[in-house]
Amino acid sequence: MSESALFPASRLEEAAGRAGAAGLDALLLTPGADLRYLTGYDARQLERLTCLVIPAGGHPMLVVPKLEFAAAQASPAAGLGLEMISWDETEDPYALIARRLGPVGAVGLADQMRALMVLRLRDALPGARQALASAALREMRMRKSAAEVAALREAGAAIDRVHARVPGWLKAGRTEREVGALITEAILAEGHVQVDFVIVGSGPNAASPHHDVSGRVLQPGDAVVVDIGGMMPSGYRSDCTRTYAIGEPPTDFLACYQVLKDAQDAACAAVRPGIPAEAVDAAAREPITRAGYGPAFIHRTGHGIGLESHEEPYIVAGNAEVLAPGMAFSIEPGIYPGHSGARIEDIVVCTEHGAERLNNVPHDLVVIGG
Amino acid sequence: MSESALFPASRLEEAAGRAGAAGLDALLLTPGADLRYLTGYDARQLERLTCLVIPAGGHPMLVVPKLEFAAAQASPAAGLGLEMISWDETEDPYALIARRLGPVGAVGLADQMRALMVLRLRDALPGARQALASAALREMRMRKSAAEVAALREAGAAIDRVHARVPGWLKAGRTEREVGALITEAILAEGHVQVDFVIVGSGPNAASPHHDVSGRVLQPGDAVVVDIGGMMPSGYRSDCTRTYAIGEPPTDFLACYQVLKDAQDAACAAVRPGIPAEAVDAAAREPITRAGYGPAFIHRTGHGIGLESHEEPYIVAGNAEVLAPGMAFSIEPGIYPGHSGARIEDIVVCTEHGAERLNNVPHDLVVIGG
Repeated sequence: MSESALFPASRLEEAAGRAGAAGLDALLLTPGADLRYLTGYDARQLERLTCLVIPAGGHPMLVVPKLEFAAAQASPAAGLGLEMISWDETEDPYALIARRLGPVGAVGLADQMRALMVLRLRDALPGARQALASAALREMRMRKSAAEVAALREAGAAIDRVHARVPGWLKAGRTEREVGALITEAILAEGHVQVDFVIVGSGPNAASPHHDVSGRVLQPGDAVVVDIGGMMPSGYRSDCTRTYAIGEPPTDFLACYQVLKDAQDAACAAVRPGIPAEAVDAAAREPITRAGYGPAFIHRTGHGIGLESHEEPYIVAGNAEVLAPGMAFSIEPGIYPGHSGARIEDIVVCTEHGAERLNNVPHDLVVIGG
Repeated sequence: MSESALFPASRLEEAAGRAGAAGLDALLLTPGADLRYLTGYDARQLERLTCLVIPAGGHPMLVVPKLEFAAAQASPAAGLGLEMISWDETEDPYALIARRLGPVGAVGLADQMRALMVLRLRDALPGARQALASAALREMRMRKSAAEVAALREAGAAIDRVHARVPGWLKAGRTEREVGALITEAILAEGHVQVDFVIVGSGPNAASPHHDVSGRVLQPGDAVVVDIGGMMPSGYRSDCTRTYAIGEPPTDFLACYQVLKDAQDAACAAVRPGIPAEAVDAAAREPITRAGYGPAFIHRTGHGIGLESHEEPYIVAGNAEVLAPGMAFSIEPGIYPGHSGARIEDIVVCTEHGAERLNNVPHDLVVIGG
């Protein structure tokens, strides 16, 4: 996939327009997803300031440390016609930005900008109200282009290939950490350039949704929640959860798993343009609550995904954000009765015709050596 | 090494005292190096707020999403006697913190806190001036304890083992990216849990200090700058650079390398308690400037290292910070004449008797197949 398809030059102008519409005189974007989204430049997060400055009514500039200048010029940002300004080790880049911007009433900061930079910019631009750049950028970033959906589809296929290999590694007697190390290698081997998280929660650890790995030894009878994801060369992320069982699990666990699978299907079926995000959460919650597991479903149903593992829209009660074609998010209900747990997670994209699942490894409980 | 030695419980109280002395009513620390330093808790950076609240004159509390509660309780933070408060998916944790803190005049925010959280805290605590927590914590974090130095020594030995294997991978015909992939695997295999960066800059790419890897094919006659680092299970970081040559390099490069090696030695020899950080930078710069390469040494001499790859003290002109025993930082002069480049980097610790080098793989230019 070409970088110009993923990161079209038109975005800078659209961002400037949206900044103005949001009442912001400029966007100030340090390295992270916003900067990459608008320019394709995968800049390192450093204490030295790199900042894309997008005046609502002017020409965008990329302020980079001299040390990063060659990297910035080798990046797709160099093809966008923006001005590149380098600063020297002993210069003050905040003052430089203030001089170039002139008087401004309000600026939008990258949501991920570090406090260190937020406060330095506050001091350098004392008259400017600081708001979040997402006020201008969230609509753009939420609705994925066809090229972005293709990138997420590639990421989904890559993590599916890892899950397809997981049953071979889940053996009684191995620790979660040992299994996690094999998965980490496989995430890279299957095409990711970065491992974002590896959760292997076995037995009672399956009941802690954000457990990572531990020295616990897998036991016959364990349920094992495996929730894994990484970043592809495109910058787009994968995230997929499946639940495995080592040996035949108890009947009540099988019944609980069937409820969970129905809930995940119901939530996927609920996805369509025009409904609020919280309706998808409600669709997942309804069958779980009806079966009496309501209090054991202790988290939201999902989160958006793209250049970040967690981004908007969040699929959670209280979020009235209306779904639209191109929105990509996880659907990952879980049931955690305390002594064990299960979760099923796919990334889906909202299309005109409902949800397209980007994870297609089977959703049934995988019973190993049953 | 035990976690209680690396993360002693006494730090919370010391931090509260230093906050008060810095004129701050509380420290607000989201996941990152400050939180880990004070509690041992390696919390995930999420959009859901996790925040260690340290009132200058009260009892510390750890505010965690319900979903992270089990992980927080399983972490070393659970042994510190602080109050743990969990919040539910639909609660507002910022309002919770404001209620628990009561009226405050000034708060210190983790330097790495995201703008999203900085601005939410500003709105939840409208009367509080926001400053950086480093005003209170920088002295503590800069002076490493014996246990921290031991952790950095382990990290240094691990990355030295990787460099010892690099000559076997540098072959004409391979791409930088292929070599980088082998190094990435080795960083993990030699004991790190995370790869922080892998720079393989060959030929003209050696002239760009923050180049990472590319599809460039290694050529006979290339100099190759290999700058690599990662995170150990302790959370402490490695960072080491060596320069290699594929086949015998030209005489002028050998002369330049000798100047660089002398400069790196001179900077290491300059390290002792009581001198300013900038004096070490000057010591590295002097022999390089004298030999006529001054304009080709385009970056500062070094950066502190610990739970972050780059932290204080910075070894740069203008930094009058006085060195003290326990301070750990890189000494990494480089010469980049444009068509090629070289850099030598060790992590050193300032002791009563001068610098202890934590990287001990030989400093000579490694000529491969010469």
